Amino acid sequence: MYIGVDLGGSFIKIGLLDNKFNILNKQSTQTPIGKIANELCNCISKQILKILKNTNTKISEITAIGIACPGVTDSKNGILLYPPNLNMRNFNIVNEMKKYFNVPIYIENDSNCAAICQFHNTNKTKDISNMVLLTIGTGIGGGIIINKKLYKGNGLGGEIGHMKISLNGKKCSCKKHGCFEAYASASALIKQTKSAIKKHPDCKMAKYINSTGEKPTGKTVFDFAKQHDPVAVLVVNKYINDFLATGISNIINMLSPQAIYISGGISNESDYLLIPLKQAVNQKALIPFTTDILICDDLNDAGIIGAALICSNHYSLYINNT
Amino acid sequence: MYIGVDLGGSFIKIGLLDNKFNILNKQSTQTPIGKIANELCNCISKQILKILKNTNTKISEITAIGIACPGVTDSKNGILLYPPNLNMRNFNIVNEMKKYFNVPIYIENDSNCAAICQFHNTNKTKDISNMVLLTIGTGIGGGIIINKKLYKGNGLGGEIGHMKISLNGKKCSCKKHGCFEAYASASALIKQTKSAIKKHPDCKMAKYINSTGEKPTGKTVFDFAKQHDPVAVLVVNKYINDFLATGISNIINMLSPQAIYISGGISNESDYLLIPLKQAVNQKALIPFTTDILICDDLNDAGIIGAALICSNHYSLYINNT
Repeated sequence: MYIGVDLGGSFIKIGLLDNKFNILNKQSTQTPIGKIANELCNCISKQILKILKNTNTKISEITAIGIACPGVTDSKNGILLYPPNLNMRNFNIVNEMKKYFNVPIYIENDSNCAAICQFHNTNKTKDISNMVLLTIGTGIGGGIIINKKLYKGNGLGGEIGHMKISLNGKKCSCKKHGCFEAYASASALIKQTKSAIKKHPDCKMAKYINSTGEKPTGKTVFDFAKQHDPVAVLVVNKYINDFLATGISNIINMLSPQAIYISGGISNESDYLLIPLKQAVNQKALIPFTTDILICDDLNDAGIIGAALICSNHYSLYINNT
Repeated sequence: MYIGVDLGGSFIKIGLLDNKFNILNKQSTQTPIGKIANELCNCISKQILKILKNTNTKISEITAIGIACPGVTDSKNGILLYPPNLNMRNFNIVNEMKKYFNVPIYIENDSNCAAICQFHNTNKTKDISNMVLLTIGTGIGGGIIINKKLYKGNGLGGEIGHMKISLNGKKCSCKKHGCFEAYASASALIKQTKSAIKKHPDCKMAKYINSTGEKPTGKTVFDFAKQHDPVAVLVVNKYINDFLATGISNIINMLSPQAIYISGGISNESDYLLIPLKQAVNQKALIPFTTDILICDDLNDAGIIGAALICSNHYSLYINNT
C-alpha cells in the first residue's frame, strides 16, 4: 500500500492507496501557513498516523510515502526549493519526514504528479508512451511523460512555464523575462482582461465589471467572448492564438508527444478553448496534426494518486536513473 | 556489420562498420543534385556494392543499412519529407533502396545521427543518459538523447530550431515566424553582421568587407570582435546573450539534460563562444548550473557512424517503440 500526500497552499490532502493506486481512505486538513517548516511535517505526520489508525493499517504495510509539492522541487535530494505560499526555502522535507516514518519517502512537483496521474488514467483505456500535461493557473506547470515514465532529465526538467516565447518580453514571477507563463497563465489572462477593460471602458465586459465591482477571473473574458463582446473576443483570440498556441507548438516541435493535456480552471472552457487552439497550433507547428491536444480528465484527488504513483519504479524513471 | 550512409547536399559518404561501429572502409561520391529521386538511390546502391566488393563482404553479412538524411525525415515510414538542396519531396527512400538490398534499412535526420554519434563517443569515457546536440549552420538542427536512446516522440521530435523565441518575430526558412534558427543560426548571424556593416560603414569590419568585397561568414564577426571592433563586439554579444542563450535556456528549463553539445562552424570559436554563452544561459535558466554546455567532439564521419548507430535497437528507441 502507499500513502499519497497532496501538499497544497490551502489544504493538505492525504490518502491511503492499494497497490493498484485506488484510494482506500482519505482525509484533509488546513495547511499550517506561516508556521515553520518542521511544524508542517508534524501536521502531515499526525494526519498519516490518523489514517493508519482509522484503517487499522501498520506502517510496515506501507511501501512508500509520496508527497506532491508546490513549486520547484529537487526530488533527487528531497528538497522543497522555493514553494509559493509556504514559509520555507530549501527545506529538506524528506529528511524531516523520515524522523516520523521509517519507509521510503519521495517528493515531486505537483504538476508532475498531475501528469503521471493523467498518464495512469489514460493508459487504462489507451496505450500511449509520451505525453505532456500543462497546468494553467497562477503560473504554468508542466509534466513530461516519456517512454511511459515521468521525465525529469537532470532532476529539474519540465519547467515548461519558464520557456521564453518573447525576447526581452514581459517580466515573469521568476524575475526573468518573456516566459510562457507571463503570457499564457490564468494570471496573465486576467491582466490582459483588466488592461482591455481599462482601454475600452464602454465595452459590455468593462461596464459589467466596473458596475458590479467584481474582480475578473480567467473565466470572465471567456464568458463575455461567448456573448460576442468584441473586446472580450479580441482578448481571447490573442490569448489563444498568440500566446497559448506558441508555447504548445514549441512543445510539439521539440518533443512531438502523442498528446498534450491541459488542466487548470481554463480547461473548463472545453471546445471553446480547444477548437481555436488546435487550429492555431497547427498553423504554428512545423509538422501539424501530429499531437492530440486534449482537456485533462476531471480527476479528483489527482495530487494524492500522482504522489503515490511517483513512489513506483514503474512510473518514475528519474528516481533510479539520473 | 553495418553500412552507414551520410547523404549530404554535396557529397554522399558511405562506410562499412563492424558491430562496434568502427569504420572498416569508406568512400565518397558527389551527390547527383537535380536528378530525380530514383537516380539518387541508384547512385547510393552502386557505391554500397563497390564497398562490399572492395572489402570482400557479402550483403548477407550486413545487419542493416542506415542513412543520415538532410531536412525533416519521417523515419517511421522511411520518407524524406522535404530535404533542402535535393530535388524531391515526400520520397520514400527506404522502399526505393529495398529494391536493391534485402536488408533492414533505416533513415534518420542528420542532426539526430550527429547526436547519437556524439552520445556514443561521450559514453566511451563517461556515463551519461540525457543530452541534446545542436547543429548550428544554415539552420539549427537538434538531436535529443533521453535515457541513452534517440528521442523522437511521435516520430518528428527534435526540431529545436523551430522553437519560437519571439512572438510575431522574424520570418524563418520554414515560413513561420520567430523561430530560434531565424535568430541563432549561422545564416542569421551573417544577416546580423551584414546589417551592422550597413549601419556602421566606418567600423573596422565594414571597411574590411567593403574594401575586399569578401562575403562575410559566421566567422567574420567573431574575428573582428576578437580584434575589439566595437560594432563586431556588439553583434557577437547580442547573438550570444539574446538569441543563442534564450534557445539553450529553454532546452534546459524544459528537458534539463546532463549536457548540451554545440556543433557546426560556430563551435570553432570554442571558449570565445562558450564562456559568455554559459554566463548568459545561467542568467536565463530557471535553475542555473544544472546542464553542461560543451563543444561537440571533432568527429570525422559523424554522419556515417550515426547512420549505422540508428540501425541498432540499443540506441534508437523510436524504431520499435512509437
